[in-house]
Amino acid sequence: MKLSARNQIKGKILEVKKGATTAHVRVEIAPGQVITASITNEAVDELGLKSGSAAIVVIKASDVMIGVE
Amino acid sequence: MKLSARNQIKGKILEVKKGATTAHVRVEIAPGQVITASITNEAVDELGLKSGSAAIVVIKASDVMIGVE
Amino acid sequence: MKLSARNQIKGKILEVKKGATTAHVRVEIAPGQVITASITNEAVDELGLKSGSAAIVVIKASDVMIGVE
Amino acid sequence: MKLSARNQIKGKILEVKKGATTAHVRVEIAPGQVITASITNEAVDELGLKSGSAAIVVIKASDVMIGVE
Amino acid sequence: MKLSARNQIKGKILEVKKGATTAHVRVEIAPGQVITASITNEAVDELGLKSGSAAIVVIKASDVMIGVE
Amino acid sequence: MKLSARNQIKGKILEVKKGATTAHVRVEIAPGQVITASITNEAVDELGLKSGSAAIVVIKASDVMIGVE
Repeated sequence: MKLSARNQIKGKILEVKKGATTAHVRVEIAPGQVITASITNEAVDELGLKSGSAAIVVIKASDVMIGVE
Repeated sequence: MKLSARNQIKGKILEVKKGATTAHVRVEIAPGQVITASITNEAVDELGLKSGSAAIVVIKASDVMIGVE
Repeated sequence: MKLSARNQIKGKILEVKKGATTAHVRVEIAPGQVITASITNEAVDELGLKSGSAAIVVIKASDVMIGVE
Repeated sequence: MKLSARNQIKGKILEVKKGATTAHVRVEIAPGQVITASITNEAVDELGLKSGSAAIVVIKASDVMIGVE
Repeated sequence: MKLSARNQIKGKILEVKKGATTAHVRVEIAPGQVITASITNEAVDELGLKSGSAAIVVIKASDVMIGVE
Repeated sequence: MKLSARNQIKGKILEVKKGATTAHVRVEIAPGQVITASITNEAVDELGLKSGSAAIVVIKASDVMIGVE
Protein backbone atom coordinates (compact mmCIF):
# COMPACT_ATOMS: atom_id res chain seq x y z
CA MET A 1 0.00 0.00 0.00
CA LYS A 2 1.18 3.51 -0.85
CA LEU A 3 -0.09 6.07 1.64
CA SER A 4 -1.02 9.78 1.43
CA ALA A 5 0.75 10.51 4.74
CA ARG A 6 3.64 12.88 3.99
CA ASN A 7 5.91 11.46 6.67
CA GLN A 8 7.09 7.86 6.38
CA ILE A 9 10.47 7.34 8.01
CA LYS A 10 12.34 4.05 8.26
CA GLY A 11 13.87 3.05 11.57
CA LYS A 12 14.48 0.27 14.08
CA ILE A 13 12.28 -0.55 17.06
CA LEU A 14 14.05 0.07 20.38
CA GLU A 15 11.25 -0.86 22.75
CA VAL A 16 7.65 -2.08 22.82
CA LYS A 17 5.79 -1.44 26.07
CA LYS A 18 2.26 -2.78 26.31
CA GLY A 19 -0.36 -1.34 28.65
CA ALA A 20 -3.91 -2.55 29.28
CA THR A 21 -5.15 -1.56 25.81
CA THR A 22 -2.52 0.90 24.53
CA ALA A 23 1.14 0.23 23.74
CA HIS A 24 4.09 2.61 23.38
CA VAL A 25 6.58 1.80 20.65
CA ARG A 26 9.93 3.61 20.44
CA VAL A 27 11.62 3.69 17.04
CA GLU A 28 15.12 5.02 16.33
CA ILE A 29 15.02 6.87 13.00
CA ALA A 30 18.59 8.24 13.06
CA PRO A 31 21.45 7.84 15.53
CA GLY A 32 20.11 9.23 18.82
CA GLN A 33 16.76 10.31 17.34
CA VAL A 34 13.82 8.35 18.66
CA ILE A 35 10.11 8.68 17.82
CA THR A 36 7.48 7.31 20.21
CA ALA A 37 4.18 5.96 18.88
CA SER A 38 1.11 5.23 20.98
CA ILE A 39 -0.83 2.47 19.22
CA THR A 40 -3.20 -0.36 20.18
CA ASN A 41 -1.91 -3.61 21.70
CA GLU A 42 -3.80 -5.32 18.89
CA ALA A 43 -1.68 -3.60 16.26
CA VAL A 44 1.51 -4.62 18.07
CA ASP A 45 0.42 -8.27 17.98
CA GLU A 46 -0.88 -8.18 14.42
CA LEU A 47 2.30 -6.64 12.99
CA GLY A 48 4.55 -8.70 15.28
CA LEU A 49 6.37 -5.59 16.51
CA LYS A 50 9.34 -6.25 18.77
CA SER A 51 12.58 -4.66 19.84
CA GLY A 52 15.20 -4.86 17.07
CA SER A 53 12.75 -5.12 14.16
CA ALA A 54 12.71 -2.73 11.23
CA ALA A 55 9.69 -0.41 11.19
CA ILE A 56 8.38 2.65 9.40
CA VAL A 57 7.11 5.61 11.39
CA VAL A 58 4.06 7.15 9.67
CA ILE A 59 2.75 10.65 10.53
CA LYS A 60 0.12 12.75 8.73
CA ALA A 61 1.36 16.30 7.99
CA SER A 62 -1.66 17.85 9.73
CA ASP A 63 -0.51 16.23 13.00
CA VAL A 64 2.90 17.91 12.98
CA MET A 65 3.55 21.18 14.82
CA ILE A 66 6.53 23.49 14.59
CA GLY A 67 8.33 25.11 17.53
CA VAL A 68 11.09 27.69 17.68
CA GLU A 69 13.39 28.55 20.57
CA MET B 1 7.48 25.99 27.82
CA LYS B 2 8.09 22.26 28.35
CA LEU B 3 5.57 20.13 26.51
CA SER B 4 3.99 16.69 27.11
CA ALA B 5 4.41 15.73 23.44
CA ARG B 6 6.80 12.76 23.32
CA ASN B 7 8.36 13.77 20.01
CA GLN B 8 10.33 17.01 19.79
CA ILE B 9 13.04 16.86 17.15
CA LYS B 10 15.40 19.68 16.19
CA GLY B 11 15.96 20.46 12.54
CA LYS B 12 16.33 23.12 9.88
CA ILE B 13 13.51 24.49 7.72
CA LEU B 14 13.98 23.62 4.03
CA GLU B 15 10.84 25.22 2.63
CA VAL B 16 7.75 27.17 3.66
CA LYS B 17 4.87 27.07 1.19
CA LYS B 18 1.82 29.14 2.04
CA GLY B 19 -1.66 28.38 0.70
CA ALA B 20 -4.89 30.34 1.20
CA THR B 21 -5.13 29.53 4.93
CA THR B 22 -2.83 26.52 5.39
CA ALA B 23 0.95 26.35 4.94
CA HIS B 24 3.26 23.39 4.45
CA VAL B 25 6.63 23.55 6.20
CA ARG B 26 9.38 21.04 5.41
CA VAL B 27 12.00 20.48 8.10
CA GLU B 28 15.18 18.43 7.70
CA ILE B 29 15.76 16.51 10.95
CA ALA B 30 18.73 14.42 9.82
CA PRO B 31 20.69 14.28 6.56
CA GLY B 32 18.11 13.34 3.92
CA GLN B 33 15.26 12.94 6.42
CA VAL B 34 12.54 15.53 6.03
CA ILE B 35 9.30 15.96 8.00
CA THR B 36 6.41 17.95 6.52
CA ALA B 37 4.07 19.94 8.79
CA SER B 38 0.73 21.37 7.75
CA ILE B 39 0.08 24.43 9.94
CA THR B 40 -1.82 27.72 9.68
CA ASN B 41 -0.41 30.68 7.71
CA GLU B 42 -0.90 32.66 10.91
CA ALA B 43 1.53 30.43 12.80
CA VAL B 44 4.12 30.81 10.02
CA ASP B 45 3.91 34.60 10.34
CA GLU B 46 3.83 34.67 14.12
CA LEU B 47 6.89 32.42 14.52
CA GLY B 48 8.69 34.04 11.57
CA LEU B 49 9.32 30.65 9.94
CA LYS B 50 11.48 30.74 6.84
CA SER B 51 13.80 28.54 4.85
CA GLY B 52 17.14 28.07 6.62
CA SER B 53 15.85 28.75 10.15
CA ALA B 54 16.24 26.33 13.03
CA ALA B 55 12.97 24.71 14.10
CA ILE B 56 11.67 21.93 16.33
CA VAL B 57 9.23 19.38 14.95
CA VAL B 58 6.62 18.46 17.60
CA ILE B 59 4.39 15.37 17.33
CA LYS B 60 2.08 13.81 19.93
CA ALA B 61 2.71 10.05 20.36
CA SER B 62 -0.95 9.24 19.74
CA ASP B 63 -0.59 10.71 16.22
CA VAL B 64 2.20 8.32 15.21
CA MET B 65 1.50 5.05 13.38
CA ILE B 66 3.85 2.15 12.72
CA GLY B 67 4.23 0.31 9.41
CA VAL B 68 6.19 -2.80 8.49
CA GLU B 69 7.21 -4.03 5.06
CA MET C 1 3.47 -1.86 3.82
CA LYS C 2 1.28 -3.21 6.62
CA LEU C 3 0.08 -0.46 8.95
CA SER C 4 -0.82 -0.27 12.67
CA ALA C 5 -3.91 1.86 11.93
CA ARG C 6 -6.96 -0.18 13.01
CA ASN C 7 -9.20 1.18 10.26
CA GLN C 8 -8.35 0.41 6.62
CA ILE C 9 -11.44 0.32 4.43
CA LYS C 10 -11.50 -0.25 0.67
CA GLY C 11 -13.62 2.00 -1.51
CA LYS C 12 -13.85 3.99 -4.73
CA ILE C 13 -12.98 7.66 -5.12
CA LEU C 14 -16.04 9.78 -5.98
CA GLU C 15 -14.39 13.21 -6.10
CA VAL C 16 -11.04 14.93 -5.71
CA LYS C 17 -11.22 18.67 -5.02
CA LYS C 18 -7.92 20.51 -4.79
CA GLY C 19 -7.52 23.78 -2.90
CA ALA C 20 -4.44 25.99 -2.62
CA THR C 21 -2.46 23.47 -0.53
CA THR C 22 -5.11 21.08 0.81
CA ALA C 23 -7.37 18.71 -1.15
CA HIS C 24 -10.61 16.99 -0.17
CA VAL C 25 -11.07 13.43 -1.40
CA ARG C 26 -14.45 11.70 -1.12
CA VAL C 27 -14.40 7.89 -1.07
CA GLU C 28 -17.47 5.63 -1.23
CA ILE C 29 -16.87 2.68 1.13
CA ALA C 30 -20.32 1.07 0.85
CA PRO C 31 -23.42 1.96 -1.20
CA GLY C 32 -24.36 5.47 -0.06
CA GLN C 33 -21.61 5.68 2.60
CA VAL C 34 -18.95 8.24 1.82
CA ILE C 35 -15.85 9.19 3.82
CA THR C 36 -14.14 12.55 3.23
CA ALA C 37 -10.38 12.90 3.66
CA SER C 38 -8.51 16.18 3.86
CA ILE C 39 -4.97 15.56 2.57
CA THR C 40 -2.20 17.55 0.87
CA ASN C 41 -2.37 18.34 -2.87
CA GLU C 42 1.07 16.75 -3.06
CA ALA C 43 -0.30 13.40 -1.87
CA VAL C 44 -3.08 13.57 -4.48
CA ASP C 45 -0.50 14.05 -7.24
CA GLU C 46 1.95 11.49 -5.92
CA LEU C 47 -0.66 8.72 -5.57
CA GLY C 48 -2.43 9.75 -8.81
CA LEU C 49 -5.80 9.97 -7.04
CA LYS C 50 -8.75 10.63 -9.30
CA SER C 51 -12.48 10.06 -9.46
CA GLY C 52 -13.30 6.40 -10.17
CA SER C 53 -10.04 4.95 -8.80
CA ALA C 54 -9.91 2.32 -6.09
CA ALA C 55 -8.58 3.63 -2.77
CA ILE C 56 -8.22 2.61 0.86
CA VAL C 57 -9.40 4.90 3.62
CA VAL C 58 -7.01 4.76 6.61
CA ILE C 59 -7.93 6.07 10.08
CA LYS C 60 -6.10 5.65 13.39
CA ALA C 61 -8.41 4.36 16.16
CA SER C 62 -7.46 7.26 18.46
CA ASP C 63 -8.96 9.66 15.89
CA VAL C 64 -12.41 8.05 15.98
CA MET C 65 -15.18 9.35 18.25
CA ILE C 66 -18.50 7.73 19.11
CA GLY C 67 -21.87 9.50 19.19
CA VAL C 68 -25.30 8.32 20.32
CA GLU C 69 -28.68 9.83 19.56
CA MET D 1 -25.86 19.00 18.28
CA LYS D 2 -24.87 19.25 14.63
CA LEU D 3 -21.13 18.80 14.14
CA SER D 4 -18.56 20.13 11.64
CA ALA D 5 -16.93 16.68 11.31
CA ARG D 6 -17.42 15.51 7.73
CA ASN D 7 -17.71 11.85 8.64
CA GLN D 8 -20.65 10.70 10.74
CA ILE D 9 -21.62 7.11 10.01
CA LYS D 10 -24.37 5.14 11.72
CA GLY D 11 -23.65 1.61 12.88
CA LYS D 12 -24.07 -0.96 15.64
CA ILE D 13 -21.59 -1.59 18.46
CA LEU D 14 -20.02 -5.07 18.24
CA GLU D 15 -17.70 -4.88 21.24
CA VAL D 16 -16.61 -2.57 24.04
CA LYS D 17 -13.27 -3.45 25.63
CA LYS D 18 -12.18 -1.31 28.57
CA GLY D 19 -8.55 -0.91 29.60
CA ALA D 20 -7.13 0.97 32.59
CA THR D 21 -8.09 4.42 31.22
CA THR D 22 -8.72 3.82 27.51
CA ALA D 23 -11.43 1.69 25.87
CA HIS D 24 -11.68 0.23 22.38
CA VAL D 25 -15.12 0.25 20.79
CA ARG D 26 -15.79 -1.70 17.58
CA VAL D 27 -18.73 -0.50 15.46
CA GLU D 28 -20.10 -2.30 12.39
CA ILE D 29 -21.03 0.36 9.80
CA ALA D 30 -21.93 -1.98 6.94
CA PRO D 31 -22.03 -5.79 6.64
CA GLY D 32 -18.48 -6.92 7.40
CA GLN D 33 -17.12 -3.36 7.74
CA VAL D 34 -15.99 -2.51 11.25
CA ILE D 35 -14.48 0.72 12.57
CA THR D 36 -12.50 0.72 15.85
CA ALA D 37 -12.53 3.77 18.12
CA SER D 38 -10.12 4.37 20.98
CA ILE D 39 -11.93 6.55 23.54
CA THR D 40 -11.85 7.15 27.31
CA ASN D 41 -13.51 4.70 29.72
CA GLU D 42 -15.36 7.75 31.05
CA ALA D 43 -17.02 8.33 27.69
CA VAL D 44 -18.08 4.67 27.51
CA ASP D 45 -19.80 4.98 30.89
CA GLU D 46 -21.33 8.39 30.23
CA LEU D 47 -22.87 7.37 26.89
CA GLY D 48 -23.80 3.89 28.17
CA LEU D 49 -22.05 2.21 25.23
CA LYS D 50 -22.48 -1.54 25.05
CA SER D 51 -22.48 -4.34 22.51
CA GLY D 52 -25.64 -4.30 20.38
CA SER D 53 -26.39 -0.57 20.80
CA ALA D 54 -26.78 1.82 17.91
CA ALA D 55 -23.92 4.32 17.60
CA ILE D 56 -22.52 6.93 15.24
CA VAL D 57 -18.87 6.87 14.26
CA VAL D 58 -17.50 10.44 14.00
CA ILE D 59 -14.21 11.27 12.24
CA LYS D 60 -12.77 14.67 11.29
CA ALA D 61 -11.72 14.82 7.60
CA SER D 62 -8.21 15.97 8.53
CA ASP D 63 -7.70 12.65 10.38
CA VAL D 64 -8.40 10.51 7.31
CA MET D 65 -5.58 9.25 5.07
CA ILE D 66 -5.82 7.64 1.64
CA GLY D 67 -3.90 4.56 0.50
CA VAL D 68 -3.61 2.90 -2.89
CA GLU D 69 -2.43 -0.60 -3.74
CA MET E 1 -26.29 13.59 19.33
CA LYS E 2 -24.26 13.00 22.50
CA LEU E 3 -20.57 12.64 21.75
CA SER E 4 -17.68 10.71 23.37
CA ALA E 5 -15.34 13.70 23.02
CA ARG E 6 -14.39 14.82 26.56
CA ASN E 7 -14.16 18.50 25.66
CA GLN E 8 -17.31 20.32 24.55
CA ILE E 9 -17.21 24.00 25.42
CA LYS E 10 -19.87 26.58 24.61
CA GLY E 11 -18.84 29.90 23.15
CA LYS E 12 -19.54 32.61 20.58
CA ILE E 13 -18.01 32.80 17.12
CA LEU E 14 -15.74 35.84 16.70
CA GLU E 15 -14.59 35.28 13.13
CA VAL E 16 -14.96 32.90 10.20
CA LYS E 17 -12.19 33.09 7.61
CA LYS E 18 -12.57 30.88 4.56
CA GLY E 19 -9.63 29.76 2.43
CA ALA E 20 -9.65 27.71 -0.76
CA THR E 21 -10.86 24.51 0.93
CA THR E 22 -10.12 25.08 4.63
CA ALA E 23 -11.66 27.69 6.96
CA HIS E 24 -10.47 29.04 10.31
CA VAL E 25 -13.16 29.71 12.91
CA ARG E 26 -12.35 31.63 16.09
CA VAL E 27 -14.63 31.01 19.08
CA GLU E 28 -14.56 32.94 22.36
CA ILE E 29 -15.17 30.46 25.20
CA ALA E 30 -14.59 32.84 28.12
CA PRO E 31 -13.79 36.58 28.29
CA GLY E 32 -10.50 36.95 26.41
CA GLN E 33 -10.08 33.20 25.78
CA VAL E 34 -10.36 32.25 22.14
CA ILE E 35 -10.06 28.82 20.51
CA THR E 36 -9.26 28.51 16.78
CA ALA E 37 -10.66 25.62 14.74
CA SER E 38 -9.48 24.63 11.28
CA ILE E 39 -12.42 22.96 9.52
CA THR E 40 -13.65 22.50 5.94
CA ASN E 41 -15.43 25.33 4.09
CA GLU E 42 -18.23 22.81 3.52
CA ALA E 43 -18.82 22.46 7.26
CA VAL E 44 -18.96 26.25 7.64
CA ASP E 45 -21.67 26.44 4.98
CA GLU E 46 -23.61 23.42 6.21
CA LEU E 47 -23.76 24.62 9.83
CA GLY E 48 -24.29 28.26 8.79
CA LEU E 49 -21.38 29.42 10.97
CA LYS E 50 -20.93 33.18 11.15
CA SER E 51 -19.52 35.82 13.46
CA GLY E 52 -21.77 36.37 16.49
CA SER E 53 -23.40 32.91 16.46
CA ALA E 54 -23.35 30.53 19.39
CA ALA E 55 -21.14 27.49 18.86
CA ILE E 56 -19.67 24.55 20.76
CA VAL E 57 -15.97 23.80 20.51
CA VAL E 58 -15.37 20.01 20.45
CA ILE E 59 -11.95 18.43 21.12
CA LYS E 60 -11.05 14.78 21.68
CA ALA E 61 -8.95 14.29 24.84
CA SER E 62 -6.23 12.45 22.89
CA ASP E 63 -5.65 15.64 20.86
CA VAL E 64 -4.85 17.77 23.92
CA MET E 65 -1.27 18.31 25.10
CA ILE E 66 -0.06 19.81 28.37
CA GLY E 67 2.73 22.38 28.72
CA VAL E 68 4.43 23.82 31.79
CA GLU E 69 6.53 26.94 32.09
CA MET F 1 9.86 27.20 23.00
CA LYS F 2 7.23 29.09 20.99
CA LEU F 3 4.81 26.73 19.27
CA SER F 4 2.76 26.86 16.04
CA ALA F 5 -0.33 25.43 17.80
CA ARG F 6 -3.05 28.12 17.69
CA ASN F 7 -4.53 27.16 21.05
CA GLN F 8 -2.44 27.59 24.19
CA ILE F 9 -4.58 28.26 27.25
CA LYS F 10 -3.32 28.71 30.79
CA GLY F 11 -5.06 26.89 33.62
CA LYS F 12 -4.69 24.89 36.81
CA ILE F 13 -4.53 21.10 37.05
CA LEU F 14 -7.53 19.65 38.91
CA GLU F 15 -6.71 15.97 38.62
CA VAL F 16 -4.11 13.58 37.25
CA LYS F 17 -5.30 9.99 36.79
CA LYS F 18 -2.73 7.50 35.58
CA GLY F 19 -3.64 4.29 33.78
CA ALA F 20 -1.36 1.47 32.62
CA THR F 21 0.36 3.58 29.92
CA THR F 22 -2.01 6.53 29.40
CA ALA F 23 -2.97 9.26 31.89
CA HIS F 24 -5.91 11.66 31.92
CA VAL F 25 -5.19 15.20 33.12
CA ARG F 26 -8.03 17.63 33.85
CA VAL F 27 -7.19 21.33 33.67
CA GLU F 28 -9.48 24.19 34.70
CA ILE F 29 -9.05 27.01 32.18
CA ALA F 30 -11.80 29.30 33.48
CA PRO F 31 -14.20 29.04 36.42
CA GLY F 32 -16.18 25.84 35.77
CA GLN F 33 -14.53 25.16 32.41
CA VAL F 34 -12.38 22.06 32.38
CA ILE F 35 -10.36 20.54 29.54
CA THR F 36 -9.31 16.86 29.68
CA ALA F 37 -6.03 15.74 28.09
CA SER F 38 -5.07 12.14 27.41
CA ILE F 39 -1.27 11.95 27.50
CA THR F 40 1.40 9.35 28.31
CA ASN F 41 2.26 8.48 31.91
CA GLU F 42 5.85 9.29 30.95
CA ALA F 43 4.92 12.89 30.15
CA VAL F 44 3.14 13.23 33.50
CA ASP F 45 6.29 12.12 35.32
CA GLU F 46 8.68 14.14 33.20
CA LEU F 47 6.75 17.41 33.61
CA GLY F 48 5.92 16.67 37.27
CA LEU F 49 2.21 17.24 36.67
CA LYS F 50 0.06 17.16 39.78
CA SER F 51 -3.22 18.51 41.08
CA GLY F 52 -2.96 22.23 41.89
CA SER F 53 -0.08 22.99 39.51
CA ALA F 54 -0.25 25.62 36.79
CA ALA F 55 -0.36 24.17 33.27
CA ILE F 56 -0.95 25.22 29.68
CA VAL F 57 -3.42 23.33 27.53
CA VAL F 58 -2.12 23.07 23.94
CA ILE F 59 -4.35 22.10 20.99
CA LYS F 60 -3.63 22.24 17.24
CA ALA F 61 -6.36 24.10 15.30
CA SER F 62 -6.83 21.14 12.94
CA ASP F 63 -7.91 19.02 15.94
CA VAL F 64 -10.79 21.33 16.89
CA MET F 65 -14.35 20.73 15.66
CA ILE F 66 -17.33 23.05 15.84
CA GLY F 67 -20.86 22.05 16.88
CA VAL F 68 -24.12 23.98 16.86
CA GLU F 69 -27.33 23.21 18.70
